[in-house]
Amino acid sequence: MALQNIFDNETFFEGYQQLRAREVNANNLFEIPERFKLLPDLKGARILDLGCGTGEHCREYIEMGASAVTGIDISEKMLAVAKEQNSDPKITYLKMPMEDLGKLEGEFDLAISSLVLHYIEDYKGVLKNLNRLLVPGGEFVFSQEHPLATAYSGGERWTRDGNGRKLHVNLADYSVESERDTTWFVDNVKIYHRTFSTVINDLIDAGFIIEKVVEPKPSEEILEKYPDYYDLFHKPDFLLVKARKA
Amino acid sequence: MALQNIFDNETFFEGYQQLRAREVNANNLFEIPERFKLLPDLKGARILDLGCGTGEHCREYIEMGASAVTGIDISEKMLAVAKEQNSDPKITYLKMPMEDLGKLEGEFDLAISSLVLHYIEDYKGVLKNLNRLLVPGGEFVFSQEHPLATAYSGGERWTRDGNGRKLHVNLADYSVESERDTTWFVDNVKIYHRTFSTVINDLIDAGFIIEKVVEPKPSEEILEKYPDYYDLFHKPDFLLVKARKA
Repeated sequence: MALQNIFDNETFFEGYQQLRAREVNANNLFEIPERFKLLPDLKGARILDLGCGTGEHCREYIEMGASAVTGIDISEKMLAVAKEQNSDPKITYLKMPMEDLGKLEGEFDLAISSLVLHYIEDYKGVLKNLNRLLVPGGEFVFSQEHPLATAYSGGERWTRDGNGRKLHVNLADYSVESERDTTWFVDNVKIYHRTFSTVINDLIDAGFIIEKVVEPKPSEEILEKYPDYYDLFHKPDFLLVKARKA
Repeated sequence: MALQNIFDNETFFEGYQQLRAREVNANNLFEIPERFKLLPDLKGARILDLGCGTGEHCREYIEMGASAVTGIDISEKMLAVAKEQNSDPKITYLKMPMEDLGKLEGEFDLAISSLVLHYIEDYKGVLKNLNRLLVPGGEFVFSQEHPLATAYSGGERWTRDGNGRKLHVNLADYSVESERDTTWFVDNVKIYHRTFSTVINDLIDAGFIIEKVVEPKPSEEILEKYPDYYDLFHKPDFLLVKARKA
């Protein structure tokens, strides 16, 4: 299986860093707060962060009381930043594709993953290995691009009125589960589209109990400040799931 | 709360009966087979059928080995047909809105509901009462209109090419959870749109464990016979859930 590592592409990495540096983006407004809301008490927890990127959340988990965090990522560039800016004696950074989780040894109380699972072809395999690494009752909290977003397979994503205002999403092939080529700073970023039912059923089949599902939408406060985020009522950008090892 | 009983409207009832009499429709091709696939072994089971309609499935559940079926429906007309065409000593038909489940006494091993929950405003209340009526480990299998279908709130549902072929669904306001007025034989049929996450989270909050979620799509065999059902790849018509009382 060819593993995807767009994050070490120079063009991508620069674009990505600039995006994340912006204070107002969908991650900061929706994905991050909703993910933190789903976390259990971290005191004393041994955490596995799948796709830890530049490690800022690894450090935050330690500050919240976690006893140890193992952050894995496929990108050398990301991990270099992580080690420079977010190192801590309680954090271990490992260069490892998520597809190699089978090689990891250890015991974790909690696994967290932010916006990387939609890059993974072998979702079932990752879940199976993850379930093995968690203690009984251990939790898994993750976010991914929403299935209504990963469904996109070309053409115009939105229909707009004469003023450019988004009227509706042009949704096609939602139930066709396949690799989608998309463009995000660089061409041919591969996303693996899975329907909502597959996301949930594969978790259950891997031995998880579903605890909560979240499709973030803007609060009135956010809408007042940033009215363009009304788009998220038409199509959520993110899907978050909290599940427990049965 | 005003309860909705379109099924006793003359115009609706005639249209509905004609639709159901057709052999080839989405219910027969997708909803019914997928619902039956989700059922556990019915031998000796005490079954509650929520929105039993004209009772043909109540009778089928008995033929499959159920020891007793209680069918409830809000429609007098439907129940009159049920009692005439599908009566059995093991079947009890009750005229009762689902919102009155709190008044029902009994103990059930399995609850089944086909395509009625999207007419119910108080989904949480129904689930809470249902959970009380099930034995521990009892199962709940239901179908409803898919959230991508109930999201529809007016305008053109599809964008078509010059030949009338459906290109994509025009999806708007998916995350706005509210009553939708729609037309199905008669005007102003009320549907309550809930997102996928609400459908799942309300079940969990009411004490259910999610076992399987199904968004039916056509097999190659069906597509070959009825190519128009490719539409279901763009937007599933149905959502089915199997859940167990925790």
